[in-house]
Amino acid sequence: MTENYTLHEDPRSGNCYKIKLTAALLGLPLETKQYNILKGETRTPDFMANVNPSGRIPVLQIDDKFLPESNAACWYLAEKSALIPDDRFARAEMLRWMFFEQYSHEPNVATLRFWMQFVGEANLSDQQRLQIMAKRTAGAEALSLMDSHLAAHKWMTGDAVSLADIVLYPYTHVADAGGFQLADYRHICSWIERVEALPDFIAMD
Amino acid sequence: MTENYTLHEDPRSGNCYKIKLTAALLGLPLETKQYNILKGETRTPDFMANVNPSGRIPVLQIDDKFLPESNAACWYLAEKSALIPDDRFARAEMLRWMFFEQYSHEPNVATLRFWMQFVGEANLSDQQRLQIMAKRTAGAEALSLMDSHLAAHKWMTGDAVSLADIVLYPYTHVADAGGFQLADYRHICSWIERVEALPDFIAMD
Repeated sequence: MTENYTLHEDPRSGNCYKIKLTAALLGLPLETKQYNILKGETRTPDFMANVNPSGRIPVLQIDDKFLPESNAACWYLAEKSALIPDDRFARAEMLRWMFFEQYSHEPNVATLRFWMQFVGEANLSDQQRLQIMAKRTAGAEALSLMDSHLAAHKWMTGDAVSLADIVLYPYTHVADAGGFQLADYRHICSWIERVEALPDFIAMD
Repeated sequence: MTENYTLHEDPRSGNCYKIKLTAALLGLPLETKQYNILKGETRTPDFMANVNPSGRIPVLQIDDKFLPESNAACWYLAEKSALIPDDRFARAEMLRWMFFEQYSHEPNVATLRFWMQFVGEANLSDQQRLQIMAKRTAGAEALSLMDSHLAAHKWMTGDAVSLADIVLYPYTHVADAGGFQLADYRHICSWIERVEALPDFIAMD
């Protein structure tokens, strides 16, 4: 029995794009339903009652079931595919980088891009403005850790592309929009080229 | 061939305790090696060269391999056990709550406990002090989401205890130390009792 997948998304979100990229690499059909988060379209009573009570996207809908959290959605789609390593340690290491992405990378690298490119520096609250320096430092640390790792490894885990690469690529490749200098991380730059050369790769909107 | 597990930890950290709780519930022997993060013992050149280049704990050592990120370590230990659901959707939903824990719960609920109980409010930087309100609001949102979910479910995923419960329990049950009022979340309070009644449960130090 084939399942039907619908992604509830804002196309500007790298967290949503991850899921579309995973589906594309796996050749899985994925419908999309679009919301503008800046207009509060995921905070309506209807969305919170029927899609996600936390008012966040992305949510992967699998027939009549709803799965929030981008990296969990990528995992669901990729189970039993080559995007999840067979080796037990490599699989746990893949999850290690996926948790790193949500804890150490996204809140810094993605948030600064969102603030600078979509909210606009002039519109930030004082509290947000005061966090810019700390996020720039923490984001640069995350990028440096990736760069050192990629100096010795072709892919983030094991010897083939995995979900660790797929979930780290979206916000990394547009890090400059948040004020980072990707050119300073040459191993990341080479890895970005490898990701973009994958068969069936699709670009972010 | 039996593997040897060593946890590089600070015993005050709930992220470290998660891994010890997982090992205890599974009956797996786990050595520990202790560091004081407040004294910078995980930022030494030796630690960063040999254990974790990011200078963070916990790290699960599996023979001569090192695995950072608490939730990845729990996954490694629990693979093929009853702590990971057999059902594909339940397994992805378990990961959904594990990513929620690291993205929406830990940076608020755990960080406020760390600041209030270990750093001390008087010693916080101005920048930290300015984040208290936002973290209190976001932490309360995370606890409310858990509470609503637990109003309708005995465990966070599926019909049995899983890693989703194990990784959410540590910082939730001590949330009061960060200024939250656990008594306001009665479904969480009942769930805490269920977790603590599990066979082979061990308490946090």
